[in-house]
Amino acid sequence: MTGNTAAADAATFRKGNGRTDRAPYDLDAVLDLAVATFNERGYEATSISVLAERLGTSKSALYYHVSGKEELLQRALDRALGELEAVLEASGADDHRGDAADRLEFVLRGAVRVLVAELPYVTLLLRVRGNTDIERDALRRRREFDHRVSQLVEAAHAEGSLRADLDPGTTSRLLFGMINSIVEWYRPGGPMDAAALADATVSVALDGLRAR
Amino acid sequence: MTGNTAAADAATFRKGNGRTDRAPYDLDAVLDLAVATFNERGYEATSISVLAERLGTSKSALYYHVSGKEELLQRALDRALGELEAVLEASGADDHRGDAADRLEFVLRGAVRVLVAELPYVTLLLRVRGNTDIERDALRRRREFDHRVSQLVEAAHAEGSLRADLDPGTTSRLLFGMINSIVEWYRPGGPMDAAALADATVSVALDGLRAR
Repeated sequence: MTGNTAAADAATFRKGNGRTDRAPYDLDAVLDLAVATFNERGYEATSISVLAERLGTSKSALYYHVSGKEELLQRALDRALGELEAVLEASGADDHRGDAADRLEFVLRGAVRVLVAELPYVTLLLRVRGNTDIERDALRRRREFDHRVSQLVEAAHAEGSLRADLDPGTTSRLLFGMINSIVEWYRPGGPMDAAALADATVSVALDGLRAR
Repeated sequence: MTGNTAAADAATFRKGNGRTDRAPYDLDAVLDLAVATFNERGYEATSISVLAERLGTSKSALYYHVSGKEELLQRALDRALGELEAVLEASGADDHRGDAADRLEFVLRGAVRVLVAELPYVTLLLRVRGNTDIERDALRRRREFDHRVSQLVEAAHAEGSLRADLDPGTTSRLLFGMINSIVEWYRPGGPMDAAALADATVSVALDGLRAR
């Protein structure tokens, strides 16, 4: 449940030059801008100077609140991962409440909602390649999340809720492929909201496209 | 049907220093190595010098056969796109033979087979972001391919073969998401061959995961 770290720590954040002609911004706003910039230019290519310039503040003002771009990356990945992990906890995946197919459906629907609600944060997470300790730690948590969803797929398979002719490993990967692709093409504000997208995705995954 | 340009043009290709201690290599081998390097380091970050070094040859020997890394990129993208377009042609998508659902299934199965057979080439294609004319042209052809598959989804929808409660646009995107993800996780040589993977993917897409 680490998803709200950034919000909990939010501090009032004023421009370094002391001018008050713009509204003060908080850590969440800084994080939003950092994530947008990382997604646009790549994390490696983004410096604290670039972030300060885009925020209309000074490097020293930024350093007063965060230790560096590493901390921004860490907080951003923590937010995406925390929200996804919270879905898994809420599903009762660990205490095995209800049948596995129901829990799986709950997790898929929740994952789509998180993707939509935290689109830039999850986009960043999905692009992480493991070049730094922070990224490697995020990859480890992402693999752990994937692994726990795969276990749900296996449990649903074992209880007979999922088709016996499909291999659970392949099934899990195709599911993740479909869900993760949402960050590539979905843009909020269109005709389909998060709930409708979650319904459509889960429905395609479980029931397929063919008319019956 | 531009997929075999590289093979058709294949020329015997000897090391620039005239040594014969390694087997001669042809344009296909050069292209394979270029594509692997582009995928590993990024196209921008790859120079002809790096390619020459990895091939154990000289820049001038490489330039004798290709005009530059642009030509290698062009040939690589053309190979991936040509193979995908050939599937669409073979499906009869344009002359409307058979019902649309059958043609769609043929195209999905064919696309998976191309992804597996040309894994590094399709990986490169899916990473193209449109920084150069060559990349923009490839993006245009990729969008045209996607558009024609979407039209097939719409036709299958209109003829009543696909579920009426799903929007064809969203359906197409989820389908592409699932299929394109294959380049991220599938590695040849495992327990599942291309035909089995194509069967599993089409089966999940059309019939879903739920046991009936």
